Amino acid sequence: MITIFAPDGIPEVVAGDNLGEIISSNCELENHDAVVVTSKIVSKAEGRVVHLDPNDDSAFEKLVLSEAKRVLRRRGKLLITETFHGFICANSGIDQSNVDEGCAVLLPKDPDLSARRIHKQLLARTGLTLGVIISDTFGRTWRKGVTDVALGCAGIAGILDLRGTRDSRGRTLVATEIAVADEIAAAAELAKPKAAGTPVVIVRGLHTELFRRASIAKEIVRHPSEDLFR
Amino acid sequence: MITIFAPDGIPEVVAGDNLGEIISSNCELENHDAVVVTSKIVSKAEGRVVHLDPNDDSAFEKLVLSEAKRVLRRRGKLLITETFHGFICANSGIDQSNVDEGCAVLLPKDPDLSARRIHKQLLARTGLTLGVIISDTFGRTWRKGVTDVALGCAGIAGILDLRGTRDSRGRTLVATEIAVADEIAAAAELAKPKAAGTPVVIVRGLHTELFRRASIAKEIVRHPSEDLFR
Repeated sequence: MITIFAPDGIPEVVAGDNLGEIISSNCELENHDAVVVTSKIVSKAEGRVVHLDPNDDSAFEKLVLSEAKRVLRRRGKLLITETFHGFICANSGIDQSNVDEGCAVLLPKDPDLSARRIHKQLLARTGLTLGVIISDTFGRTWRKGVTDVALGCAGIAGILDLRGTRDSRGRTLVATEIAVADEIAAAAELAKPKAAGTPVVIVRGLHTELFRRASIAKEIVRHPSEDLFR
Repeated sequence: MITIFAPDGIPEVVAGDNLGEIISSNCELENHDAVVVTSKIVSKAEGRVVHLDPNDDSAFEKLVLSEAKRVLRRRGKLLITETFHGFICANSGIDQSNVDEGCAVLLPKDPDLSARRIHKQLLARTGLTLGVIISDTFGRTWRKGVTDVALGCAGIAGILDLRGTRDSRGRTLVATEIAVADEIAAAAELAKPKAAGTPVVIVRGLHTELFRRASIAKEIVRHPSEDLFR
């Protein structure tokens, strides 16, 4: 059985905060918990908040372009970009909700590294086997609505590779690289009170074999050469 | 708190089975449970299993094309198609795992209708307010690995529309149509034992306002006219 819950009492995060400290002191963690952390508080802790020039109407778009490797599509004010990380998302993942007026939050520079940092901080404080996932909310190409996905991870799989395992009839399964980190991020979103900006969610009861060294950049980000639609 | 678990003892499903009967007799359901049913057993119950001609090497591809509105991309034996429902997925969603040798399982003809049928069967047996989601495993354009998504739903939202609600600073949120049905399908996948073909998962503890009349076709399937990448 899997249980998912959002710990109360996580304070407003500011630059320089130790997120492992904040999380472990607000939540009784257990072995094999996955700790899902919204990228926004990671960015805030890492100082990835910028002030937009109020006299420049195109300040936001310039910022989006400065975080982009390229623009895939443009529709009105919405740019679909490939970020320097290789993520494809709206406006390079830059967000202006739950932040001071006139400010914008950039994605963490290296979300896998952010996850590893929090993972190390949690390990030092708890001694537990944990996974850390940095999540954000992305749209999808062919389906309406947004879902939470994993931008970075540490101590927990990006992909669960079932290639070579057999189905209930003993036939080898194909196409079975399950993006578990994205499923965990999506599951965590369901436990958030609506629009409350809940920054941390715990997912408990996952298969223990998911807990290993891992990277979203290496396991989930699709290289343009393998891409059928870019 | 959300809990997710897979009931034991769901038998092999055959054409004509009453899935609501099977589910309710194998699981103690509660008010506001979401019942996530793998499309494969829905297809089996609805007789959507076909025998492939063993003398025709292209029998599978012909079947894929017969279920497709168009082919978006082809890479070797893999076709990315738009199904007649409007889903974009590999091989029109046709699968040969967990089925007899030489057979293939088509997607349900109308997964929203399938969900409504099961929803009605469950209501008749339990009298509870429940949601039903028909799930399947799809790839993603820009991200490696597959995740479970919702093909049909009844009694539970496809999209949770937060447009107009405010963030923790009182600013109106933008881009906040959350594809909760897909997140529930993804969450359910995490509770399945690996490769065991677990066909039913219960997701308990969701926000009660998600339980309403709904449709994946109307809420989540993106019309080609709104599509930036087709």
